[in-house]
Amino acid sequence: MKGLSYTEAGVDTALYHRLLDRVRPLIEATQGPQVAAGVGPFAGLYELPGLGWLAASADGVGTKVKVAVAAGRHGDVGADLVNHCVNDIATAGARPLFLLDYFACGRLDAEVFPQVLAGLAAACQRAGCALLGGETAEMPGLYAPGDYDLAGFVVGLVEPGRLPDPARVGPGDLLLGLPSSGLHTNGYSLARKVFEGVALDSVLPGLDGPLAEVLLAPHRLYREELERLQGRWKTAAHITGGGLVENVPRALPEGLAAELQTSRWEVPAIFGVLQERGRISREQMFGTFNMGLGMVLVCPEPVEGLPVVGRVIEAGAGPRVVLKP
Amino acid sequence: MKGLSYTEAGVDTALYHRLLDRVRPLIEATQGPQVAAGVGPFAGLYELPGLGWLAASADGVGTKVKVAVAAGRHGDVGADLVNHCVNDIATAGARPLFLLDYFACGRLDAEVFPQVLAGLAAACQRAGCALLGGETAEMPGLYAPGDYDLAGFVVGLVEPGRLPDPARVGPGDLLLGLPSSGLHTNGYSLARKVFEGVALDSVLPGLDGPLAEVLLAPHRLYREELERLQGRWKTAAHITGGGLVENVPRALPEGLAAELQTSRWEVPAIFGVLQERGRISREQMFGTFNMGLGMVLVCPEPVEGLPVVGRVIEAGAGPRVVLKP
Repeated sequence: MKGLSYTEAGVDTALYHRLLDRVRPLIEATQGPQVAAGVGPFAGLYELPGLGWLAASADGVGTKVKVAVAAGRHGDVGADLVNHCVNDIATAGARPLFLLDYFACGRLDAEVFPQVLAGLAAACQRAGCALLGGETAEMPGLYAPGDYDLAGFVVGLVEPGRLPDPARVGPGDLLLGLPSSGLHTNGYSLARKVFEGVALDSVLPGLDGPLAEVLLAPHRLYREELERLQGRWKTAAHITGGGLVENVPRALPEGLAAELQTSRWEVPAIFGVLQERGRISREQMFGTFNMGLGMVLVCPEPVEGLPVVGRVIEAGAGPRVVLKP
Repeated sequence: MKGLSYTEAGVDTALYHRLLDRVRPLIEATQGPQVAAGVGPFAGLYELPGLGWLAASADGVGTKVKVAVAAGRHGDVGADLVNHCVNDIATAGARPLFLLDYFACGRLDAEVFPQVLAGLAAACQRAGCALLGGETAEMPGLYAPGDYDLAGFVVGLVEPGRLPDPARVGPGDLLLGLPSSGLHTNGYSLARKVFEGVALDSVLPGLDGPLAEVLLAPHRLYREELERLQGRWKTAAHITGGGLVENVPRALPEGLAAELQTSRWEVPAIFGVLQERGRISREQMFGTFNMGLGMVLVCPEPVEGLPVVGRVIEAGAGPRVVLKP
């Protein structure tokens, strides 16, 4: 039996990058000198002279919403969104100012919509960010009954001197890992394929609780940790779509690679279950999921309490991420 | 035969407002003193001391995307989104800084996605706003093959002294109308219901071109007109979801109403066709569609070239919008 891959689960990130490259000149033509391109790969940066930079990010929660809908649990979808968004701009050294949401459904459900919104507001409060507005769209015919989609858009401020500079990263820098709570908001199309037909209240061997609970664990917020460690990390990678393999290199300058020592941190059980049931290759796992690390910091020195999960090396002609046991 | 209404077409704005009210305290709890609540109803406002206010808005294009998909024409969906977003913050006196988009689909289409994105980038360029980033989500199982959704988030800057103040609006102020290009991005669920079974290449009696062309006319951008007339209008209403009836009062302080003289401007033919075919009440029409006015300015004096479409009156215990012939 052939193992599953993300592409076969219906998500083709290579195609996306190819298509994006086709329109990139048109996008770049819209960007004036205020746009700090090439910096802060997890957030867009717009300079406000004298004040610093506005850092902005748009995100969704992916098909994790399908799991929430199937389980009838909508309280944490908002936290998933807010934490994903706020983490993205935190990698640019930004503190969040405000967030706007986009909630789209076929028909508003009087139970579900307030649950989602209440969770969203509570998560904004915890992240220290104003819920400034949003758009709610009823689009009959586009969404099936019960389904909805949720996207968010956050704006934060990076004070002068606090913008991380990838050029300061060099060979020998350490990679420190911040633990994730599970899948966060990525890889759900593949995970749903793996668990097709499995009841969400099943407790699978090796897992601590019912599948719904494990899969719906909220995306962890790293804002406080990144602020507390300000000055001790050079750059940070938020491990989202594309997993460790695609995201860690976004925190490195060209020519450098990350050597990850995969025995240095504990990979949560859900990833082992996914890999085994889906017969997913190790390469696919690390290229799709966060594997237990929600954020990777590039630091000159160790930091007490954080595992060293690898180090920065010269890339040469090799891959940007090297997995070692 | 009973006429169609927006609620029967699957969109219940009253329910939305009721549900929103339930979570409003949670939302307001996230908003610190930097959030200028109660001002700029078409945009959220966040104060940056010394610099002015950031004005932000989130919008979608509604089920106009379903018409675009059915017609196989994706080039103007981006303009719909950008112009909708930028108009919203222009009513707050903001010039746009940047926009981020959210594109969600079942599976990326190598033809459609670049068309949408190219249109989006071109529209950003025309609106003078950087396309700073975005999120593209492939969500198999949530969107039917060929379907997609598009949302946008814009951030602009309002310079000190340029924030419109509804408190300056008084009885006797004039309402000036800026013509729309058609339905813009609202009322499409109702319109699609009315034209169910009608081929999009039909040229219906009274209409200038094929139905697809009339329905897909891009949302008009009012940024330049609002800037050119800066100082001559007190407040502005962007006529979007909820039509003239819901949106014009958003530009007025409590206690005042708008008297619209509906013979003072030309209602485009598409609205007559919709009303007749759908047997839609006059009240529903004005409460769903823009009826030919994409933006309404509240001005102390007439402005050359713009029709006076009504005036501000005392509301008393009456409705906030009074329709006169």
